[in-house]
Amino acid sequence: MSLNLPEKKRSSLSTSPARAICLSFFAVIAVGTLLLTLPYSSQDGQFTNVVDALFTATSATCVTGLVVFDTATKWSVFGQVTIIALIQIGGLGLLTITTFFNIAIGKRLGFRSMQRAQESINVDGVMDIDKMIRIVVKASFAVEGIGAAILMLVFVPKYGVHGIFISIFLAISAFCNAGFDILGFEEKFISLTNYNGSPIVIIVITFLIIIGGLGFIVWADLLDYRKTKKLMLHSRVVLLMTALLIVSGTVMFLVCEWYNPATLLDMPLGEKLSAAYFQSVSTRTAGFNTIDITQMFPVTKTFTMVLMFIGAAPGSTGGGIKVTTISVVVATVISVIRGREDTIIMKRKVAKNTVYKSLAIVMLAGLLVIIAGSVVYFSMPLSTLETGIDSMFEAVSAFATVGLSSGVTALANIPSKLVLTLTMFTGRVGPISFVLSLAANNGIKKNQIMPDGKIMVG
Amino acid sequence: MSLNLPEKKRSSLSTSPARAICLSFFAVIAVGTLLLTLPYSSQDGQFTNVVDALFTATSATCVTGLVVFDTATKWSVFGQVTIIALIQIGGLGLLTITTFFNIAIGKRLGFRSMQRAQESINVDGVMDIDKMIRIVVKASFAVEGIGAAILMLVFVPKYGVHGIFISIFLAISAFCNAGFDILGFEEKFISLTNYNGSPIVIIVITFLIIIGGLGFIVWADLLDYRKTKKLMLHSRVVLLMTALLIVSGTVMFLVCEWYNPATLLDMPLGEKLSAAYFQSVSTRTAGFNTIDITQMFPVTKTFTMVLMFIGAAPGSTGGGIKVTTISVVVATVISVIRGREDTIIMKRKVAKNTVYKSLAIVMLAGLLVIIAGSVVYFSMPLSTLETGIDSMFEAVSAFATVGLSSGVTALANIPSKLVLTLTMFTGRVGPISFVLSLAANNGIKKNQIMPDGKIMVG
Ligand SMILES: [K+]
Ligand SMILES: [K+]
Repeated sequence: MSLNLPEKKRSSLSTSPARAICLSFFAVIAVGTLLLTLPYSSQDGQFTNVVDALFTATSATCVTGLVVFDTATKWSVFGQVTIIALIQIGGLGLLTITTFFNIAIGKRLGFRSMQRAQESINVDGVMDIDKMIRIVVKASFAVEGIGAAILMLVFVPKYGVHGIFISIFLAISAFCNAGFDILGFEEKFISLTNYNGSPIVIIVITFLIIIGGLGFIVWADLLDYRKTKKLMLHSRVVLLMTALLIVSGTVMFLVCEWYNPATLLDMPLGEKLSAAYFQSVSTRTAGFNTIDITQMFPVTKTFTMVLMFIGAAPGSTGGGIKVTTISVVVATVISVIRGREDTIIMKRKVAKNTVYKSLAIVMLAGLLVIIAGSVVYFSMPLSTLETGIDSMFEAVSAFATVGLSSGVTALANIPSKLVLTLTMFTGRVGPISFVLSLAANNGIKKNQIMPDGKIMVG
Repeated sequence: MSLNLPEKKRSSLSTSPARAICLSFFAVIAVGTLLLTLPYSSQDGQFTNVVDALFTATSATCVTGLVVFDTATKWSVFGQVTIIALIQIGGLGLLTITTFFNIAIGKRLGFRSMQRAQESINVDGVMDIDKMIRIVVKASFAVEGIGAAILMLVFVPKYGVHGIFISIFLAISAFCNAGFDILGFEEKFISLTNYNGSPIVIIVITFLIIIGGLGFIVWADLLDYRKTKKLMLHSRVVLLMTALLIVSGTVMFLVCEWYNPATLLDMPLGEKLSAAYFQSVSTRTAGFNTIDITQMFPVTKTFTMVLMFIGAAPGSTGGGIKVTTISVVVATVISVIRGREDTIIMKRKVAKNTVYKSLAIVMLAGLLVIIAGSVVYFSMPLSTLETGIDSMFEAVSAFATVGLSSGVTALANIPSKLVLTLTMFTGRVGPISFVLSLAANNGIKKNQIMPDGKIMVG
């Protein structure tokens, strides 16, 4: 009896990070929904449907970027400020929470920087974590500020005072990998399609996206590089995979869409390259677009789904199953084919429980996307021919918090909207809570010892 | 230098089982293709197109059952005998080869029965393995013989002397999980659709399918049960999963197709149950059908693809990724969610390299199916509306050596036929060679020792 009590206490402690994240996201979304339903938030001064407000608030807080309305033409300045505030809270909030727990469980994870941070934390772990988070938040604001300032060079000459707001909105949205924009007054749902010829916009936005998507661990490691002259395996994998995926994505968009009259065909060579590069960066997981996603060939949509599903780095503003997860899975397959006992990445052995965790994440994510895509497919009116691939596209986009749309969201009925809302929430909050609750569990729970059992597979 | 030479010798030895299987299958298919092109093989006495003969020979040898022609109306008795011979050779051949190598690597795998067999094998391992294989082959013939004899009770009164041939053909085809039939003279491509009201046919065929799909290890274990009063983990998992999948498949077909006028709707209750049960057993991986597959609802096709992909047991006449593989993957996901260090099935710890192998099999199989399905999709004429799901269906069916057709094979052009041929071959030979070459590799190659590297996922 006296043994049971502490066990229970421990177990409730171990699930609390996950619960805390879910509840705090839920609270932010609820407030956002309330604000967005109000007449002040709309340009027409009317109340907005609760399902649509919920969808928009969830999409902003989970930094997804799927929209049922064009942001610039539907929402008032108040509504747009609400949306960008939700993006900033959702994007940085999750990043700081994961940073907090990464530090708290740092010793177990064994990251060098984490360990160093851990050493300076006092028993109740409040003081220095606060400091750490303040540094992360300040650094993020600084990066967003620089980005916004440069963007103003383009948007202030073009749109005057309103250009300042546009620049700030875009910088926050890009750094948080949210993909919302307020350029729809140029043409509804146009996103950045008009800016393929503007190197400043393309470069600033993609840099903000990439930095936001690298995640806290990589930033800390890169800042330490001058001193240590070494990068952790984690950072090397994230940086290599990011570079590899950007280049291969650019080539893929160029090859697949070169002859598509609705996207690349009529662009001059420079804009072709610029659009393909931008789309490659943005597809994992920012969700801006410089080419018309709905008009892409099915084969491009298929590859785009793969890029979206993979996503960015853990502990970043980006989504998806994460570049490290797919790296571990691919490395495991290669190791098995080569007859190795262990998963090897860059001459380092990956721990068994990291491999198991990656397997679980891929399987659960795949299952979620297939279920969500199927529900959307079967609840959609059969008006469009390609609804099969398009429904799956929308589900992947929602799960991976990308926000690119194949056009399904704009046509979606209430059940589809609710399913996509749930998918956005699960996609943003789910994997992280999942990993955190595990990390917590593993440190605390004793494993039952089981006898070995042999089983033949394949 | 003196260290390198034995290494090379070992490495060529370790890949030889896989190569032996590939080459022997290749030889059988080549002879089959030659025979089937000849005018003697066709009812119209004309030469048959090489691509179609290759497709049919591969489908028979790999016990897949996809057909470009109706077997009963296209091929002469000589052609039909060629096909059933290819099925018997392909089905039992692979089973005996895997049995051979299971015994050869038995010690490493640690199966009780295998170990016992191993003990009685002399150094060059020829004598007793020969005996073992002869027992397997004799037992298989006995089961097929009994099945054929009972089927004659139905088919001889109905079709006279031809009924004997039909019964033997069906018994072999069912035990080998091939799914070929010669009932197309009743109506082209009708399969067993006319026999939902015949309990003898339904029961005999499903029992032959189930027994064939359990695999050698389970047979040996069940035969030992009287002595040992215990079943190995492997056998318990195979038996439980087989039962579970049959029941849930039956329920799925009943629920999804109950109101489909093209399948279950107009059947009396008994036939509804009989057809759903039969289709559930046959979908993994025999490939006979008692309902019209092409007319099933998309949702049923989707679940059918899942059943096909899972398949039967390892070392059996069935295909797919295997019930044990999916069990290990699901158990790993559950273990990760529960925060366990190890994969636990039925209170037994599953070895790490079994988990890695399962992960690799699922990923490679998924990749193969997606690539094959996409190639078929993009090479098919866009005449049918549902080609997306139907192409994927056909690819899964070919990979998992099921042979159920959504109608794509009948319409397929030459590139699609060649892709499906390759998929059938890879699906039947690939996973087994793959696992065998690994098993051999693992036993021989020393693993380089790598330092641990930490990586964060999800
Ligand atoms: K996004
Ligand atoms: K079959």
